[in-house]
Amino acid sequence: MPRIQTILTPALFPLHSPEGKAVVVIDILRATSSICVAFAHGASRIMPVASPAESMSFRELGFICAAERDGRVVEGFELGNSPFSYMRDEIHGASIALTTTNGTHAIHLSKDAAVVIIGSFLNLDAVCHFLKQENRDVLLLCSGWKNNFNLEDTLYAGALCEALKGDFEIADDAGIAAMDLYEKAGHDLNAYIQKSSHAHRFASLGITEDIAFCMQKNIYTVVPVLKGEFLVVPEASPNQF
Amino acid sequence: MPRIQTILTPALFPLHSPEGKAVVVIDILRATSSICVAFAHGASRIMPVASPAESMSFRELGFICAAERDGRVVEGFELGNSPFSYMRDEIHGASIALTTTNGTHAIHLSKDAAVVIIGSFLNLDAVCHFLKQENRDVLLLCSGWKNNFNLEDTLYAGALCEALKGDFEIADDAGIAAMDLYEKAGHDLNAYIQKSSHAHRFASLGITEDIAFCMQKNIYTVVPVLKGEFLVVPEASPNQF
Repeated sequence: MPRIQTILTPALFPLHSPEGKAVVVIDILRATSSICVAFAHGASRIMPVASPAESMSFRELGFICAAERDGRVVEGFELGNSPFSYMRDEIHGASIALTTTNGTHAIHLSKDAAVVIIGSFLNLDAVCHFLKQENRDVLLLCSGWKNNFNLEDTLYAGALCEALKGDFEIADDAGIAAMDLYEKAGHDLNAYIQKSSHAHRFASLGITEDIAFCMQKNIYTVVPVLKGEFLVVPEASPNQF
Repeated sequence: MPRIQTILTPALFPLHSPEGKAVVVIDILRATSSICVAFAHGASRIMPVASPAESMSFRELGFICAAERDGRVVEGFELGNSPFSYMRDEIHGASIALTTTNGTHAIHLSKDAAVVIIGSFLNLDAVCHFLKQENRDVLLLCSGWKNNFNLEDTLYAGALCEALKGDFEIADDAGIAAMDLYEKAGHDLNAYIQKSSHAHRFASLGITEDIAFCMQKNIYTVVPVLKGEFLVVPEASPNQF
């Protein structure tokens, strides 16, 4: 039976070997949620990059340039990290260069894995289906906040462990804790997450509606996959929207 | 109001500044539990050291030499990490040099803090009382297992946060998660911890009675404090046993 290990922050990634495994990158508020939104709205490809300057360098190649730092759109960029901004008409067919505070770093860390996918509550069941099909060891990589633990990414790791525990061995205490926290959050993830530090940070930025959106389960069926430098949605997993 | 931050593994310690703060070192299974046992049974001082070789080098100075690796007493040592072994008559008045897989490393990491104390369920209330008296910012440092997250140290961090939340700000998501896990574990910590990886590891070593012992609350009132190179129990906090 393949094993699932849960990595609570990117700072703990060096304790693991990604080779041969599937990595699910998790940045619920908001990078991996917004990436799912973009593909569900027809984005062609997304290039995760390290810095706003690197993102901007793709503009002359026709990319839409997106950059978020500390919860805000970086000055001079058309897009940040809000899921609603990835629903616009111009997203359809677009190539996007994206850098965020936490999520894009986690994607880069994962690059030696056999397969890297993007997870969010928005595509929860699709991710589970994908991992069962792959049937290999899994690392759940929570992006956290500046290498610190956060509640929302851990809850999602718990949701995945709970859904997959019949087909995978939950192989560490982090997965057990994540499942227990997910059970405690119950059916109202949005209410639970209000007590997190991220929710407080977001409230101060006036973007609490983003949280409610990102806590919805299974509104999309896309599973973004890292292929070379780009996140794409392979044709075998069509966008339903 | 002073703040409490919870550090889920020593690998996350570099994200924090210990200066001016009180650090509670937590290694429930079993280093910090056994240290409390030793002082409750009259130990004079304990020197946390990095390696079995360093521990052994103190033998000629009259120290009792203790070394544990991977849950076992290191060959050639009289003592390992089992709490019961620190109840022997020869512990009374003894100087002990101790190295363990996780706990002694965490103590060394903390050395720049204003005050470093040893926490376990065995001296839970005494630790809370001490921290309220100190009335300064607190770092709860979970020793984990080889830099990975573990359940039992996190539960104890949750117990401390729960007890102190009226007097301290619980300042991060890790503390919130720890409190929720502690609440979920409820009144039977020993039953809850059976599902942890550490309990499985211990069961395979035939030392499950150590776990039941270490999950007991408030059987001791000692608060071991790091003074220079040594853990001691200051005279103001007398051993009641």
